Amino acid sequence: MKIGMIGLGRMGKNMADRLRTGGHQVVGYDISPESGRDVDSLQALVDSLEAPRAIWVMVPAGKPIESTLDQLGDLLDRGDLVIDGGNTRFTQDQAHAKALGAKGIGLVDVGTSNGIWGRENGYALMVGGSDEDVARIQPILDTLKPEGEFGLVHAGGTGAGHYAKMVHNGIEYGMMQSLAEGYAVLEASDLIQEPDEVVQSWRKGSVIQSWLLDLLAKSLQEDPHLAHIAGKAEETGETKWMIGDALELGVPTPAITSALYARQSSQIQDPMTMKAVSALRNAFGGHPIVKE
Amino acid sequence: MKIGMIGLGRMGKNMADRLRTGGHQVVGYDISPESGRDVDSLQALVDSLEAPRAIWVMVPAGKPIESTLDQLGDLLDRGDLVIDGGNTRFTQDQAHAKALGAKGIGLVDVGTSNGIWGRENGYALMVGGSDEDVARIQPILDTLKPEGEFGLVHAGGTGAGHYAKMVHNGIEYGMMQSLAEGYAVLEASDLIQEPDEVVQSWRKGSVIQSWLLDLLAKSLQEDPHLAHIAGKAEETGETKWMIGDALELGVPTPAITSALYARQSSQIQDPMTMKAVSALRNAFGGHPIVKE
Amino acid sequence: MKIGMIGLGRMGKNMADRLRTGGHQVVGYDISPESGRDVDSLQALVDSLEAPRAIWVMVPAGKPIESTLDQLGDLLDRGDLVIDGGNTRFTQDQAHAKALGAKGIGLVDVGTSNGIWGRENGYALMVGGSDEDVARIQPILDTLKPEGEFGLVHAGGTGAGHYAKMVHNGIEYGMMQSLAEGYAVLEASDLIQEPDEVVQSWRKGSVIQSWLLDLLAKSLQEDPHLAHIAGKAEETGETKWMIGDALELGVPTPAITSALYARQSSQIQDPMTMKAVSALRNAFGGHPIVKE
Amino acid sequence: MKIGMIGLGRMGKNMADRLRTGGHQVVGYDISPESGRDVDSLQALVDSLEAPRAIWVMVPAGKPIESTLDQLGDLLDRGDLVIDGGNTRFTQDQAHAKALGAKGIGLVDVGTSNGIWGRENGYALMVGGSDEDVARIQPILDTLKPEGEFGLVHAGGTGAGHYAKMVHNGIEYGMMQSLAEGYAVLEASDLIQEPDEVVQSWRKGSVIQSWLLDLLAKSLQEDPHLAHIAGKAEETGETKWMIGDALELGVPTPAITSALYARQSSQIQDPMTMKAVSALRNAFGGHPIVKE
Repeated sequence: MKIGMIGLGRMGKNMADRLRTGGHQVVGYDISPESGRDVDSLQALVDSLEAPRAIWVMVPAGKPIESTLDQLGDLLDRGDLVIDGGNTRFTQDQAHAKALGAKGIGLVDVGTSNGIWGRENGYALMVGGSDEDVARIQPILDTLKPEGEFGLVHAGGTGAGHYAKMVHNGIEYGMMQSLAEGYAVLEASDLIQEPDEVVQSWRKGSVIQSWLLDLLAKSLQEDPHLAHIAGKAEETGETKWMIGDALELGVPTPAITSALYARQSSQIQDPMTMKAVSALRNAFGGHPIVKE
Repeated sequence: MKIGMIGLGRMGKNMADRLRTGGHQVVGYDISPESGRDVDSLQALVDSLEAPRAIWVMVPAGKPIESTLDQLGDLLDRGDLVIDGGNTRFTQDQAHAKALGAKGIGLVDVGTSNGIWGRENGYALMVGGSDEDVARIQPILDTLKPEGEFGLVHAGGTGAGHYAKMVHNGIEYGMMQSLAEGYAVLEASDLIQEPDEVVQSWRKGSVIQSWLLDLLAKSLQEDPHLAHIAGKAEETGETKWMIGDALELGVPTPAITSALYARQSSQIQDPMTMKAVSALRNAFGGHPIVKE
Repeated sequence: MKIGMIGLGRMGKNMADRLRTGGHQVVGYDISPESGRDVDSLQALVDSLEAPRAIWVMVPAGKPIESTLDQLGDLLDRGDLVIDGGNTRFTQDQAHAKALGAKGIGLVDVGTSNGIWGRENGYALMVGGSDEDVARIQPILDTLKPEGEFGLVHAGGTGAGHYAKMVHNGIEYGMMQSLAEGYAVLEASDLIQEPDEVVQSWRKGSVIQSWLLDLLAKSLQEDPHLAHIAGKAEETGETKWMIGDALELGVPTPAITSALYARQSSQIQDPMTMKAVSALRNAFGGHPIVKE
Repeated sequence: MKIGMIGLGRMGKNMADRLRTGGHQVVGYDISPESGRDVDSLQALVDSLEAPRAIWVMVPAGKPIESTLDQLGDLLDRGDLVIDGGNTRFTQDQAHAKALGAKGIGLVDVGTSNGIWGRENGYALMVGGSDEDVARIQPILDTLKPEGEFGLVHAGGTGAGHYAKMVHNGIEYGMMQSLAEGYAVLEASDLIQEPDEVVQSWRKGSVIQSWLLDLLAKSLQEDPHLAHIAGKAEETGETKWMIGDALELGVPTPAITSALYARQSSQIQDPMTMKAVSALRNAFGGHPIVKE
């Protein structure tokens, strides 16, 4: 089918490529002229598609997606459909659906996983929206997803796609942190001669065999003690939102929360928390504090 | 080669089978007459092997392994070799190696993963001991391990095999807990229609694709909301030991520790910690306490 | 000064008493006729005060406070002042101030600590609002607070009072959990003969001397092993909200989060998380699962 | 009574002073000639006391205490008594008691709290040992402890004193971390004008009033945003040991563990854990890694 694609960054461009390889017609737009866009404006994108249109939006959460959906609300016609394939917070999806719905425009939210590997292997897709809207883009979803029976789920109504992806990312954080903690212990122990070889060995026959383990093993092949990588990692929102919702649901998520806190801590230069602990140690015990 | 196998439970029996299928001669012994053992006593086992002997011990950690190694120390000859394939704490391996070594008997410690799947697919093996001792049992290790380049590592000297397995299990706990937390959030949210379908979809194209995810998906196929499974899980020692060593090494392991605490908590009926919190809430705020 | 008091439960009644003892005139109202209220309706309360009025509202967060503030918005006059002394989420204070402000009615938010002990010893008060509004109720605040230089702070603009109280409660959760964990370890260890006596001894000369420790010691005097108290504790919102805001601020709060999760876990009968862990253990290791 | 004191550092010197002020005769020894020691050698110390002797040892845990106890075992006579007032790991006390006991020398272990404030206000003392041995030094304990009914407990047999102190320190870590987390949130929030003033206000009437809160408030009076203190804090062993024992006892201590991990993390420059997480993010998502 024919579809518009807004946002031709790392993810959007690769998805457009996979769709074209799969026989679809994709008209791409991006705010950057260097993006290899097919059209120069949102208006031009809309004009290039026949109603009822379907436009996949692949832009960053926050300002960019808000602004894009606002403009699409003005440019599109009753019966058109917008797919938000980015990392929008699920709580925003409802508001977006309401605003677009008031103009007769549908919204499908899709959580998309597999980063830079998706173009070749397919993207895991988690979809939220009405049965009718989802059915309209089924050919697109079928092409984007990996081959076989897995990799696509219609998780529920509006917001459910981003919700499922948010939970996926929470699990991802917890798994990565678990692998990283174990690896750090191997590195610290005198008993283990070559930590990277232990990790390699786990790739088959172990309970923890996984894609993430494979990736860690590959990273270690290039840099056996990760000497060239700084001990810092960013967090990108979804896991934080997941923990926030779990707090409200009354479902404790201690391992995933630990993973998020480890990332946040790695971003803080001179943590106020430890300043306070250090001040207290000095106050009651006369323990020296490192004056700056 | 010819090898003795002590302990014919779930693990030992399957390993003996895999070894025989691989062309080795295995003489099996177990304390239970119903085990299908080949000989009736440790003495008979030793007598059935020609020096220099190799005996693989697959019995529970603690009393059973201590007692077995003590007896083997008395029965074996200088130049014989014992392989401890169980879950012995790495701190004990040194003591065992010293006691056996005083009699000229070698010790190789092997951490073994893959539970009930190993017979068919091979066991991930993490090995500790001298190069010479490990070389002697290389044919056995090659048969037990999975096919291909992975699944076997000589991790270091005495104790390194059990150490690597211990860290593997810590990672395993963290990964399982992460998956479980995410699944529990899916179950608790009104947005997600069929949590089990979301889990199924992640099996391909997602960042969290893994053997554990596959197993969770299969469990959910049989029992979509895990209604027939109690919310309790035991811990079996290794992860606790790993955290204990990480504490000494100064390597924080918050996600894996969370996983262990979640299991320990699930085993406590009426936790003293929460009794104390409840008493305090009552004392300062007059909040009602549930009298038993 | 003269003030209205809405909500004559445990907290409101005691505060009214302390105010009267301090020489203020308090007109009390509560929805319950058995509350000992002075007037029978909100309208009557408003009528009994001369403009510009000041009304202290001490009702539960959520529906009750929303409804009360809505009604006061209709009944009060320009220049009147409402004090929300309950546990409203700070994010709501802004909305309340805006709605009331549109009608010329002021709002001061006050976080109030000290539960059932405040009537006698005074209440720790954390206040949010404009300098002008806060100044108007200074006589009330001075009477409610404990004697001496501490126990009252004007923390900032609208919401800052509830914010400071929310953080106070987070710390409170962390401290209680820390005490409770330590006590539980004392109880579990064979080395310690009388855990309650150890706790008593800490009341003086120790680094952890605190009001909460005193309260735990007193609880243990009545019930040395807390045998009559169930191992469950509720959470009442503030700490959850604090963690939620800390997540957004990028300030990790692992100890306080642990305290909240311990309470939430204590409320869950058959946790889905541990069902999933148990299902996984069974799937890869054949470990028995407790069928229900 | 007359007593020897070994170790005249910050703690030992102050304790000797308090004992002398209380009417006891103290003969002090320290390895450092600048310590103001009364005698120049352990032998001279032993010679200066009449049998049956009592000697209080106040030296660092590890090598120093091991060496001192070894020497005392050689120098003292049957019927003499050694008091270990330092921070020895409780698991070592048993070994020490056995070695000394073989020579007829008694051992009492005393956990001592109150750091630099003890000289004036008294030390919280947690005591382990036989009733008979403890009775012999009761006059010393009565002088060292704070006035009043609290501050001293005979917690149990050998090791119980250090065990109780170890748990005390675990609680201390958790309380300090809780206070520090709350303070860090106040600092990070735009709503709170003067975080230090909020902390000051909590000193009376609040649920969290405590000595540690007082100390934090005082630190903030000198340095309102702790600008001159580095965000690092050491850990000194006891809490780590407590968590280690709690792991074995099956008592989860998540808040206290979080406090320890926060300190350990603050000591790690470029954490291997986060290197691994960062490598993984790069591997699957192409996220940039900060090359060093």
